[in-house]
Amino acid sequence: MAIQMIILNGGSSSGKSRIVRCLQAELPDPWLTFGCDSFVDSLPARMREADDDGIVIAADGGVSVGEDFLALEAAWREGIVAMVRAGARVVIDDVFLGGAASQQRWRKALGEAADLPVLWVGVRCDSAVAADREAARGDRVPGMAAAQADVVHEGVVYDLEVDTSHTESVACARAIAAHVHRR
Amino acid sequence: MAIQMIILNGGSSSGKSRIVRCLQAELPDPWLTFGCDSFVDSLPARMREADDDGIVIAADGGVSVGEDFLALEAAWREGIVAMVRAGARVVIDDVFLGGAASQQRWRKALGEAADLPVLWVGVRCDSAVAADREAARGDRVPGMAAAQADVVHEGVVYDLEVDTSHTESVACARAIAAHVHRR
Amino acid sequence: MAIQMIILNGGSSSGKSRIVRCLQAELPDPWLTFGCDSFVDSLPARMREADDDGIVIAADGGVSVGEDFLALEAAWREGIVAMVRAGARVVIDDVFLGGAASQQRWRKALGEAADLPVLWVGVRCDSAVAADREAARGDRVPGMAAAQADVVHEGVVYDLEVDTSHTESVACARAIAAHVHRR
Amino acid sequence: MAIQMIILNGGSSSGKSRIVRCLQAELPDPWLTFGCDSFVDSLPARMREADDDGIVIAADGGVSVGEDFLALEAAWREGIVAMVRAGARVVIDDVFLGGAASQQRWRKALGEAADLPVLWVGVRCDSAVAADREAARGDRVPGMAAAQADVVHEGVVYDLEVDTSHTESVACARAIAAHVHRR
Repeated sequence: MAIQMIILNGGSSSGKSRIVRCLQAELPDPWLTFGCDSFVDSLPARMREADDDGIVIAADGGVSVGEDFLALEAAWREGIVAMVRAGARVVIDDVFLGGAASQQRWRKALGEAADLPVLWVGVRCDSAVAADREAARGDRVPGMAAAQADVVHEGVVYDLEVDTSHTESVACARAIAAHVHRR
Repeated sequence: MAIQMIILNGGSSSGKSRIVRCLQAELPDPWLTFGCDSFVDSLPARMREADDDGIVIAADGGVSVGEDFLALEAAWREGIVAMVRAGARVVIDDVFLGGAASQQRWRKALGEAADLPVLWVGVRCDSAVAADREAARGDRVPGMAAAQADVVHEGVVYDLEVDTSHTESVACARAIAAHVHRR
Repeated sequence: MAIQMIILNGGSSSGKSRIVRCLQAELPDPWLTFGCDSFVDSLPARMREADDDGIVIAADGGVSVGEDFLALEAAWREGIVAMVRAGARVVIDDVFLGGAASQQRWRKALGEAADLPVLWVGVRCDSAVAADREAARGDRVPGMAAAQADVVHEGVVYDLEVDTSHTESVACARAIAAHVHRR
Repeated sequence: MAIQMIILNGGSSSGKSRIVRCLQAELPDPWLTFGCDSFVDSLPARMREADDDGIVIAADGGVSVGEDFLALEAAWREGIVAMVRAGARVVIDDVFLGGAASQQRWRKALGEAADLPVLWVGVRCDSAVAADREAARGDRVPGMAAAQADVVHEGVVYDLEVDTSHTESVACARAIAAHVHRR
């Protein structure tokens, strides 16, 4: 059965966004993309700032989220799954801050949809390389990349893993696209 | 029954985005926002360019969309409605290029959900004022504002209309918020 | 003698950027534009954050700048004036945090260039209107608009003043362009 | 004599911007940065579009510039050099579309300033790697990277060259910073 949903998980500055853009270019069918960044953009500004029910990025790059954030994110996940059920192909660009528990949240949104074929992709990047890339971007709180590099993968089960430490985004995207075509 | 979804419709440069940001600030509960801009951002880059199954903005500001675009947009609409059913409050920032037909597409996605209380808001702006604002933004194809100013409202039925020609976004947002609270 | 430099001064969210884009569109000759935003973008990221020799925006919207910032800004001003002397027409989009003292800094950079014809433009906006627009933008620290609305104009001498409280950016730009042509 | 100006030259998607941000972070003194992107942003919108006296990017990624563009760019270069003379340290992020002729234009702006110590840095990137990165960015006209990869270096003389094909931006920046300190 053809894959209709690809969920990429990786830490900040691991290179997920570039892989997603390449994937959209590589895959012949049109795929939509959503992710934690677009979700956060959809929130009221106050929840992206000092509001403790929203999302807070500490000076050391640590990220914490509140009750309202989690409730809205759960509804958002259900909406994304509904788009896929309605026929859209979707690539998700996510950061599993809770590791296996975050994957479990997606599984819950997918429901009994053992019928809905998802490709789980881990996007790895050496902690030091990700930290250097974070510095090079210049628009991120220093420390996020290192803090998230390993934690987000703890206990997560993948169909495929790519590593951007020494591989360009395009090559990673091609590996993922090959996997999609094979199925 | 409390309103859970607000659908704003207005032409390019009519001031919808500013109203949405103000609304999110004015409303005490957290509301997510999505719209045609965020939908277009989720598409593969090639569909935002010269691809005739995507979206094309002509040199005169005319906008045309293809089959793939319409199919994905329909699935996206169903996903948004599913988010609302899952408990999220959502403000939509849309441009009804098809006028009444576009409203009908949202009604179809809402389904028999006469149960799901939606507030339909028309965002009007004098064609000349919108064209001037379009010029002032500097990042839009000249002509879109004037081309869309009236067409997008043809045959559309609203619960509330605001006019940004001589009223600031904050005042428009407050009028909408008052309507939400009243219900 | 033809005007070669236009210096706009106004508080945050007074609408200067929109006026500048309109001015560039209205004026038949090509004018370059620079300003405090593009200057700040040219700084090392650390000077836009917590560095006390850079620029700090407090939680209440107050802005303070350090020694390094002032020294670099002085050199930047001299460079801009040199561009004008080399033949470029330039529109400056500035916020005179020091009021008359800030104007004096530009005069110093202009040197004895009583020969270099500058048009000084004050961009006024009612404090409450600017605060509402600041909220509508959603990407500014609340309080900057109100804090700066009047202070930036204290003791400053203008050739022309515009008020965006009830006038669209395009109309303000046209008034300025008319002044440029007249000379 | 201490270096006060660093001029980086490389093709589109060769990784110059990331190197510049890293350099600003690595160097203990505050360095300003300007470049062809910030120059183009300062132009009237019409010169970034179909205006043949401005800058035009063809469908195949070819870039051509007109008379007005060249005249304004020459004045801009003189202004940048004046900033350096006034005491600012400046990193330039440029694309020498004309190869050696472009370097000559900077030398002309620097004048007899054999006194003004400049570090010329070539930023190389394999054409295929740059093309892949261009695709991954998703916001560039495909073809620019490949078209510029070699042409921009033709006949240009450097103090230092870095290659981003297999080296991270941070490492390249450190090599440049080491060179600055040594002098």
